[in-house]
Amino acid sequence: MNSAHAPLGQVLATGGPELSRLLHRTESRLTEVAESHGRELARHSAGTLAAGGKRLRPLLVFLCADGQAEAALRAAVAVELLHMATLVHDDVLDRAPLRRGRPTVFADGGRAAATATGDLLFSRAFAELTAARSEDAVWALSLASSALAKGELMQRADAWSDAVTPERYLERCRLKTASLFEAACRLGALFGDRPELARALGDFGLRVGVAFQILDDVLDVSGPPERTGKPRGTDLLDGTVTLPLILARERDPELRQLDLRSAVTEPAQAGAVCDRIALTGVLGEARSEALRHVAEAKAALSELDLRRKRGEALDLLADGVVDRYA
Amino acid sequence: MNSAHAPLGQVLATGGPELSRLLHRTESRLTEVAESHGRELARHSAGTLAAGGKRLRPLLVFLCADGQAEAALRAAVAVELLHMATLVHDDVLDRAPLRRGRPTVFADGGRAAATATGDLLFSRAFAELTAARSEDAVWALSLASSALAKGELMQRADAWSDAVTPERYLERCRLKTASLFEAACRLGALFGDRPELARALGDFGLRVGVAFQILDDVLDVSGPPERTGKPRGTDLLDGTVTLPLILARERDPELRQLDLRSAVTEPAQAGAVCDRIALTGVLGEARSEALRHVAEAKAALSELDLRRKRGEALDLLADGVVDRYA
Repeated sequence: MNSAHAPLGQVLATGGPELSRLLHRTESRLTEVAESHGRELARHSAGTLAAGGKRLRPLLVFLCADGQAEAALRAAVAVELLHMATLVHDDVLDRAPLRRGRPTVFADGGRAAATATGDLLFSRAFAELTAARSEDAVWALSLASSALAKGELMQRADAWSDAVTPERYLERCRLKTASLFEAACRLGALFGDRPELARALGDFGLRVGVAFQILDDVLDVSGPPERTGKPRGTDLLDGTVTLPLILARERDPELRQLDLRSAVTEPAQAGAVCDRIALTGVLGEARSEALRHVAEAKAALSELDLRRKRGEALDLLADGVVDRYA
Repeated sequence: MNSAHAPLGQVLATGGPELSRLLHRTESRLTEVAESHGRELARHSAGTLAAGGKRLRPLLVFLCADGQAEAALRAAVAVELLHMATLVHDDVLDRAPLRRGRPTVFADGGRAAATATGDLLFSRAFAELTAARSEDAVWALSLASSALAKGELMQRADAWSDAVTPERYLERCRLKTASLFEAACRLGALFGDRPELARALGDFGLRVGVAFQILDDVLDVSGPPERTGKPRGTDLLDGTVTLPLILARERDPELRQLDLRSAVTEPAQAGAVCDRIALTGVLGEARSEALRHVAEAKAALSELDLRRKRGEALDLLADGVVDRYA
């Protein structure tokens, strides 16, 4: 668990020892999968696994499964494997040397090994979930995985564009990020004691996922790098047009005229544009947009008759995604 | 249908109008999938789809399903989508400008779009099959898709190696190619009128797939390019060690000492090494190995009490994979 992420510590505390035990078993199973498919996968995925991350998606699975959390273990592992697969492919596309301070599969094994490793993790996600014997679950995962790929295609198609509207940006957030949060919640519900809540909990996940992505995009502009673990302005450097830039362009004519592709090619230039975006005051506005999605998620959640502890933990998690490095 | 592939014409003739109709519906459904996931996928996958290919895998699905072929349509589409996904990713890794005479997704959209397009085709394969409501089928597809990725990892790990044994080469053929032939037959059986033959028909597919790959590797050395549609020696150029080279190294000390990575960097050099391999006489030996797998496949098939027409069509197909440009 990322120590910078104090709110998630509270989620764990609310979930009790059972939740911690399940997350621990998720880690063990992820390691097992990585080690049981040949030396190559073991070597390449060890880094990705060890780099860890917050395991937000498995956490959502377990919180939404409640009561029947044991049965949801495979779903939690599948969702995280799919997430890891997309990270490995993203790192190939971004030629990223590091992720969370460790060499990426791309840096370690080259693009061929990284592409194949991503494909393998992808396949194992489906294999893991199929073993859980729920058709609805496999269907939910396949929808999410299609959405992730569509979101990635959309992001690349929109790179360096000056015509990305906030609506289109939000649609991309839903596809590229929130769809997997949605699937995590949906799968949790399906394997839990309240499968009839699959859709409603999925909607909760979708909103939380959108908030998560917006905040990620705010942090890419605001930093600070020593907290986020990556330099500011990486989105600007790879042409990804995010909400802060879209909003800032509406306010600052110079930003509107800036041709990112030619004017922002090195980290120092990206940092300067980040400063300029921050000066327009839009970061607070973007953060408010994220908070709005969290508020909607929590409001919808309160309409469901969940066990109190579970509702509290999900509320805390929703707050947590926008409370990073605040 | 590739006109150079006369034996497959016979398979179709044996299968009758029903088989042709099913293949036609497979094409329609593939186009439908490509067009229903946003402009980007439609644009990028149109080329891959149009490039067509022999649709060998759907054909295997239908032949193994027999009688119940209608129900197998989704399986045929899923298998071909998975195949297309791997082709798109392979083209990224090989930086291939053309496939079957048309620009690859990589050439057309760049590596980011091609990687995401592959991921999306991959996801759609699972979505398509999940809709067919058979857990065993999704399981078979996930095993095959893991095997394909493992085979790809193995191939990259063994690149330029002088220690690849014929056994390791055959294992790679099973993983990288034959596993999807196996899945096609298995899925056909599962959706057909003889699900109890899923394993036996899967074994048939596995053997045919190994033969297919061996022959592909022979053709990479022998050409002729005007028949195969690609220059000779592409495997040598990307360091893929195949059976002809493995066998030739045993016979020709100069080939044994040749360092592929430094000595074969352009097509002309690759062509010269192809000539040298051919001179050792191993191409006939490799072709015999392929024929041996076909013979085994057919022998095992004859033990099953299949409908005569079906047995004949599968025999013809098995012969067809080693009869290309003979």
